[in-house]
Amino acid sequence: LIKKKVYSKKSEFQDILICDSFAYGRMLLLDGLTQVTEADEFIYHEMIVHVPLIIHKNPRKILIIGGGDGGALKQSLLHKSAEITVVEIDKEVPFLCQKYLPKICGQVFKNKRAKIIIGDGFKFIKECKQAFDIIIVDSCDPIGPAKKLFSQEFYQNVFQALKDDGLAVYQSGSLFAQCQEIKQIFFRNKKFFPFVNIYLLDVPSYGEGAYVFTLASKKINPLKVSLNQIRNKFNKISGKTKYYNPEVHLASFVLPQFIKEHLS
Amino acid sequence: LIKKKVYSKKSEFQDILICDSFAYGRMLLLDGLTQVTEADEFIYHEMIVHVPLIIHKNPRKILIIGGGDGGALKQSLLHKSAEITVVEIDKEVPFLCQKYLPKICGQVFKNKRAKIIIGDGFKFIKECKQAFDIIIVDSCDPIGPAKKLFSQEFYQNVFQALKDDGLAVYQSGSLFAQCQEIKQIFFRNKKFFPFVNIYLLDVPSYGEGAYVFTLASKKINPLKVSLNQIRNKFNKISGKTKYYNPEVHLASFVLPQFIKEHLS
Repeated sequence: LIKKKVYSKKSEFQDILICDSFAYGRMLLLDGLTQVTEADEFIYHEMIVHVPLIIHKNPRKILIIGGGDGGALKQSLLHKSAEITVVEIDKEVPFLCQKYLPKICGQVFKNKRAKIIIGDGFKFIKECKQAFDIIIVDSCDPIGPAKKLFSQEFYQNVFQALKDDGLAVYQSGSLFAQCQEIKQIFFRNKKFFPFVNIYLLDVPSYGEGAYVFTLASKKINPLKVSLNQIRNKFNKISGKTKYYNPEVHLASFVLPQFIKEHLS
Repeated sequence: LIKKKVYSKKSEFQDILICDSFAYGRMLLLDGLTQVTEADEFIYHEMIVHVPLIIHKNPRKILIIGGGDGGALKQSLLHKSAEITVVEIDKEVPFLCQKYLPKICGQVFKNKRAKIIIGDGFKFIKECKQAFDIIIVDSCDPIGPAKKLFSQEFYQNVFQALKDDGLAVYQSGSLFAQCQEIKQIFFRNKKFFPFVNIYLLDVPSYGEGAYVFTLASKKINPLKVSLNQIRNKFNKISGKTKYYNPEVHLASFVLPQFIKEHLS
């Protein structure tokens, strides 16, 4: 699988490894787990960004927690009205991604509409009240530094940090392998948000079939947004997508029978 | 990944390996490639069977080429009017699956509505004219004995072996890793069939994101079958599904932007 190690370092928070692979080009691993690859990062990042930003009527204030690889920021910048704050805990990640993975993040960290804060997303969000239209939690799995980003307290803070019609999205793991974690994220958010849905995408380099994002919404029911509304919003973004399109948006909320039963 | 080897044999056609795995229970590998696992076989088999059988008004005569593990046969038997012929090239596969993978195939080979023929599916289909409502090609990848099941001549023979409103479905590989093969299957079928579509599913044990089946139809446009028609047919099958449901059926035909562009 791995052709060549490019760079490795033990940072304050995690083991960082950048390497070249046969199937997916250059890739970033944290604590041994694939985070992002040149070949398929577009799938993860288009789906974590465009689904909530297109559901929201006019997203202006966006917060990304994690996302130090710049991929979610790049997609967010396609929405012309968006101003994006990225709160990444590990300063090495954006530094190394800009150096070794420029195909993913390009020059996005220098964009005027982007602001990068090196700090703890959990603490940051506690201080924010009614501040954001969209919060994107682009974190690692619930081990190590990201564990508290899966707690009930965190979801309550996300709720309070969102404006009245705000939406949050959380990377939530593999549909098949992490079914228990997915249920937990879903039901913990249900305590605060009137609308909680999961939606599905395929990330080949994660190697486990369907992958799950959880969408929590304060006012807008994501399942009541019509194909026409989605198309209108989609036509206004300033760039092309390779995975996302309005039909994929709607289809991604359709769930296989076994997971529907788990979440009902 | 693999906990214990259960049985291995070099048959006339291929290396057969049955083993117990940590994540997916007992599994069958042919020439080193995962074919079927206890944990997720339902996804593959429900999707390769129920999609074409529910699109067809009244499927009576079904042909399965390959499918020696019995999984596609088991799902087909849920359609009460169906009589199913399975043509498997390697007599060892159904024998060993009945012995070592009973959770997958159970007693299906003994069902009165099932007929098992050990023989070459390519040759078998050449002799059939207007004989089947549905042909399910549940083959290996296009290497070794299965290679000719991906040829233009084979698709022409499938076309001729189907009744006037018949449909064929082909397992077609991984969306991301086998994009060229998928294009080839698609355009080769387009030479004979007025309606050719791909649809997507997730098979976690294949380890590569979305998986593709190709549907070729002589008369019925699969995209014009309504949700209500699908629901009515689905309510008549004699058993529960764990992955397939009428909404998943429709959503599975929705394609990510990059593959839509490849096939247009």
